[in-house]
Amino acid sequence: VNEFDLIHRLTQSLPANDSVVAGAGDDCAVLDLGIPGQFLLFKTDAVVEGIHFTRATPPEKIGRKALARALSDIAAMAGTPAAALVTLGLPQSFDPEFVAQIYAGLNALAARFGVAIVGGETTTNPGRIFLSISLLGTVKKGKQILRRGAQPADAIFVTGELGGSIAGKHLDFEPRLAEAQWLAEHFPIHAMLDLSDGLAGDLPHLLKAGGVGAEILKSALPVSRAAKMQARGQLPPAPHQPGASPKPAALAALTDGEDFELLFTVSGKVAVKLLDAWKQQFPQLKLTCIGKIVAGEGILIRDQTGAHKLGARGYEHFREP
Amino acid sequence: VNEFDLIHRLTQSLPANDSVVAGAGDDCAVLDLGIPGQFLLFKTDAVVEGIHFTRATPPEKIGRKALARALSDIAAMAGTPAAALVTLGLPQSFDPEFVAQIYAGLNALAARFGVAIVGGETTTNPGRIFLSISLLGTVKKGKQILRRGAQPADAIFVTGELGGSIAGKHLDFEPRLAEAQWLAEHFPIHAMLDLSDGLAGDLPHLLKAGGVGAEILKSALPVSRAAKMQARGQLPPAPHQPGASPKPAALAALTDGEDFELLFTVSGKVAVKLLDAWKQQFPQLKLTCIGKIVAGEGILIRDQTGAHKLGARGYEHFREP
Repeated sequence: VNEFDLIHRLTQSLPANDSVVAGAGDDCAVLDLGIPGQFLLFKTDAVVEGIHFTRATPPEKIGRKALARALSDIAAMAGTPAAALVTLGLPQSFDPEFVAQIYAGLNALAARFGVAIVGGETTTNPGRIFLSISLLGTVKKGKQILRRGAQPADAIFVTGELGGSIAGKHLDFEPRLAEAQWLAEHFPIHAMLDLSDGLAGDLPHLLKAGGVGAEILKSALPVSRAAKMQARGQLPPAPHQPGASPKPAALAALTDGEDFELLFTVSGKVAVKLLDAWKQQFPQLKLTCIGKIVAGEGILIRDQTGAHKLGARGYEHFREP
Repeated sequence: VNEFDLIHRLTQSLPANDSVVAGAGDDCAVLDLGIPGQFLLFKTDAVVEGIHFTRATPPEKIGRKALARALSDIAAMAGTPAAALVTLGLPQSFDPEFVAQIYAGLNALAARFGVAIVGGETTTNPGRIFLSISLLGTVKKGKQILRRGAQPADAIFVTGELGGSIAGKHLDFEPRLAEAQWLAEHFPIHAMLDLSDGLAGDLPHLLKAGGVGAEILKSALPVSRAAKMQARGQLPPAPHQPGASPKPAALAALTDGEDFELLFTVSGKVAVKLLDAWKQQFPQLKLTCIGKIVAGEGILIRDQTGAHKLGARGYEHFREP
């Protein structure tokens, strides 16, 4: 079963009403429920034991991660989070202290971003912990940034560094809320999303939504230190690849999941101005132009040997020592 | 582990902000995000395979039930539902047609109540289906009905009939949205909730929230036909009681879960007027005064032998042939 085919099928005929500005298919749903000058943002995101965390993960980091993922989706729309509900499925026997620690991690992050935790539900999920966050936010009308809207000749930017998140960042990443709001306020951002399934997995969503393609400069990819160390065997790689040879660092930056960095496009004409302003505003956080939007479809990876269509063959160019 | 103790502990120190009108502890959270004249209602509710449905449940009824439960919570606040997100945890191997049928049942109910399905998430939950609905609604400011507010000498009403839901109603019940809105519009309802854990399980929430007690007239309980048939052995009882002797019907009405009827209180002075108006407005749906609010705490059950405090001993009065 292809998950994306199924989702595509399911989302073809969903009931709608007058409140829907943008439904399924973007980082958040966008609703107009009559707040003067504002849209509501609405999002759910779940983490599941054995997939997004393990039994060995410190419980406060489980709670933190669950909320941070949903906050990252609000960031991807340039929104401001407001209130969350927590749905916690627990095995029949569980340690209440463990659950309290999950909440402690979640509450601390919520408090830091001004998010109210307004309830939720605890239910039984035999065998594993299932933690879903439902999050409401707001965004100024017209300032929401969707996945669609990228134009040929746009510059493509990513915040921070990519790859190797499994080494620790996936539990400790910062949702880029302030950064996204600043971008939306100061520049005509064309399209944006947050990277949860890796650049190679998520960029196609933005490209398909805009009916465009992209050319990525391999040498420009901001490869994380963790990805480099994993490639050198100095850090363990993702647990689902035991025995696999280390992934080249640039390939990790392209394909590893859970970076939770912002990917956005803006007219190439304002790219330099944006970079300069960013350095003033967020001197601690890298912002990198990794390529450009082109007419057509799909992703071209440009390296010293030429431009290669990303796909089964495209990845081969990363399989270097 | 006592679930209620844990929830009580967790909800003592949740982060809040200026938008929170009512947080954890009622049927829905109530938020003020600036809609003129209206509050937002925010709720999540999950159904889990093996607990709320079985592998034999028709998939469209799984979807219908999941949404109907959340709609019932919006009804309990006298609200109007607006938009929902669907979080679906699926075993690693699943039939896409099965998932499509879950959505078909959910979508049909959503369309009937004007609810937009604006997205959600499909994730892996090894071993069982986990389906959580996140629902947004609105309510006129001042017309929301909380669990707290019951006063001594209030009449206690329930809609419909109670008990025996497992025989089928738990998959097909009607969320009482129109009824609750009509009540809030026409009568000063003091307190309301929807019955999900049975009268004996849920009424205490309303009593504790109001700092009051209740006296229930056993002979007034609107016992469902299913509960009567189960008591006579003409229908199978709930599956978790194999070999148990059939529950007396009145005990089923008091303790069976998943009735999803409204329980509310209103000043005894308007009780007759309300009953008369109800019969005009909703001639097809029973409304029953089952007792009254009293000073003190807990539930007294009155039968021909006197008034008995509900508890381990109180239930004994139901253990009749």
